[in-house]
Amino acid sequence: MGERAAIVGAGHTRFGALDDGPRLLLRRAVDAAFSSVDRGAERSSIDSAFLATLGFGGWQLGNSSAVLGEEAGVSGVPTTRVENACASGGFALRAAVEAVASGSSELALVAGVEKMTDLPNARRRYWLGVSGDTEWERLAGLTFAGVYGLIASRYLAEHRVGPEALAAVAVKNHENGALNPNAHFRKPIRPDQVAAAPRVADPLGLYDCCPVSDGAAAVLVVPAERARRYTDTPVYVEGVGAGSDALAVQERTDLTRFAATRRASEEAFRAAGCERGSVSFLEVHDCFTIAELLALEDLGFASPGGAGRMTLAGETQRRGRLPVNPDGGLKAKGHPIGATGVGQAYEAFCQLRGAAGARQVAGADRALTHNVGGAGATATVTILRAG
Amino acid sequence: MGERAAIVGAGHTRFGALDDGPRLLLRRAVDAAFSSVDRGAERSSIDSAFLATLGFGGWQLGNSSAVLGEEAGVSGVPTTRVENACASGGFALRAAVEAVASGSSELALVAGVEKMTDLPNARRRYWLGVSGDTEWERLAGLTFAGVYGLIASRYLAEHRVGPEALAAVAVKNHENGALNPNAHFRKPIRPDQVAAAPRVADPLGLYDCCPVSDGAAAVLVVPAERARRYTDTPVYVEGVGAGSDALAVQERTDLTRFAATRRASEEAFRAAGCERGSVSFLEVHDCFTIAELLALEDLGFASPGGAGRMTLAGETQRRGRLPVNPDGGLKAKGHPIGATGVGQAYEAFCQLRGAAGARQVAGADRALTHNVGGAGATATVTILRAG
Repeated sequence: MGERAAIVGAGHTRFGALDDGPRLLLRRAVDAAFSSVDRGAERSSIDSAFLATLGFGGWQLGNSSAVLGEEAGVSGVPTTRVENACASGGFALRAAVEAVASGSSELALVAGVEKMTDLPNARRRYWLGVSGDTEWERLAGLTFAGVYGLIASRYLAEHRVGPEALAAVAVKNHENGALNPNAHFRKPIRPDQVAAAPRVADPLGLYDCCPVSDGAAAVLVVPAERARRYTDTPVYVEGVGAGSDALAVQERTDLTRFAATRRASEEAFRAAGCERGSVSFLEVHDCFTIAELLALEDLGFASPGGAGRMTLAGETQRRGRLPVNPDGGLKAKGHPIGATGVGQAYEAFCQLRGAAGARQVAGADRALTHNVGGAGATATVTILRAG
Repeated sequence: MGERAAIVGAGHTRFGALDDGPRLLLRRAVDAAFSSVDRGAERSSIDSAFLATLGFGGWQLGNSSAVLGEEAGVSGVPTTRVENACASGGFALRAAVEAVASGSSELALVAGVEKMTDLPNARRRYWLGVSGDTEWERLAGLTFAGVYGLIASRYLAEHRVGPEALAAVAVKNHENGALNPNAHFRKPIRPDQVAAAPRVADPLGLYDCCPVSDGAAAVLVVPAERARRYTDTPVYVEGVGAGSDALAVQERTDLTRFAATRRASEEAFRAAGCERGSVSFLEVHDCFTIAELLALEDLGFASPGGAGRMTLAGETQRRGRLPVNPDGGLKAKGHPIGATGVGQAYEAFCQLRGAAGARQVAGADRALTHNVGGAGATATVTILRAG
């Protein structure tokens, strides 16, 4: 839809095992988003709000968007909950972009939240599991780590890549996360630690898996032509793409390519009218290390099997040719489901304004964010550029 | 947003205690929607899809929009689950209207579904209860019938209206439902039966409460200017409005007015640019009989306390001055949560094309549909007119 929307403010709580519940997390992220608007934005000007959440802490399963209205101080405003599992944030951002592009909204709030660490382990697994296919996967005992483990096995065999390519993703993202004050893990790790870690679902070990996190993020979206009322440095949404696929992986023809990502990527680049070579950095959905490799390939930045070599060559490091997940990614920054896609937009907002601090990507002027629901059943891609 | 979208096809399963699961219900509603398009529509032309559901039968709690893609035969297309409790359908329709009005979609599918009757009674109550406030209402034992019972008590006392006004809503909606082949209840009832029925939450008895239903509905939405490619008799969406309120009723200043409905109504009429007097009939959210009276007042069709008298005078009957819920409403047609708001759009589509059979409202050329989430925490209003 090409530059019909812009982000003028963004907020982000710490991700991690936090004391706060989803109400307070939302409030903090939204407050931070408002505070970040250079020339200020009135809460009374918000005319639509979108909440991305999967379980909202497990207690407010229905109508939770009304809680966003309360905590954001915008009660009365139309609030909509968007839920596409781990891609909820990307789809909520997309809905807000459509609302402002359609003329029905002039200042939209998008917030994502999840509170998971205080759940008993069984309920936590349940809340993660509900986003995969229930009939043929979850009830048969196939967890997300299990699905991605199968995918990783197939990828390594198909492309004759060794597990050190997966480890390189983990090491890089932990290195980036260590520079991010909001990251769940701020601890650099070494390849030998990844290799020696307990197995979760072979070939994926503990360091191949993102953590279960609490957290929230929020962004403020306006029609592109109104952006400079709020700031001299808006971040424009050049293109949004989205796609879907069968929910169960058994229904797919290919285990190592996500059709939803591929479609979303094509649509986003078509809308943005730019080339892949012009993108400064990527925020991709690395719920498991293998997922980052798939993303690079499905997004069109590496040939099939090429992402492993690209990663081992250091090209995706923060100072490499194409930095990937400078914020630490889901792997190190953490993965509070509904907040993740919104948190990616927050990172793009910071980086493209040169305000990412120690983790700044030098000269970043165009970003791509990529958010996946389940094992590739839904996906969004957003292309953003510095204003 | 004034006539930037149109509905060109609509489908509806029976509502009731059905054998089919949510997958098959979705498939049937979508198939019926495609079949209803006069000049046909290709599934390959669908470029966005929205799923309204609260619990999807209780088994696919996350990422269920991907299942819509599968069952509708549009896998690959961006699918988004919209969940705002009982108003999910209205908000999903609103999202689709914004998608086509923004230019990002040229043929959008909206489908709503719920499968509840096969759940054990405790889980069924849970799935209904999750849409009310959890912290202060649900966990304290206040069910939806309880909340609406409190509201009804207050309404009757405040306006010196007798319970016969509530009974008149039930009798009218059962009379309409008896004419609707898709209705859960097709049995006319008498006022003395309503009065003698077991109490659920005083002053609400069994016949004041809508049933727990299974069912699905679907509509096809296009940009207004493309509508006549599909049919000579599209139904135009003249205006959509939405609003929210605090989730818990204790946070509200007034128990007998829903601010979310009032805001949604004002916004929809402003967008449509028409007067209330020009509306031929209403489809309102009568989850309990009292809710229909509140709706008439909050939507601006009756003064505070006036809806009871209007109903007792027969004005809202199918052949009255302002027919309300000619399809039987939630009360008699049934209330499969996610399907309800989409089912209201289906009814508007049928009525405004003169195709509603025995329940046809004579000369209907403009309709208003009204969908509420929880006890007024979220609401949408849509104004539609015959093409």
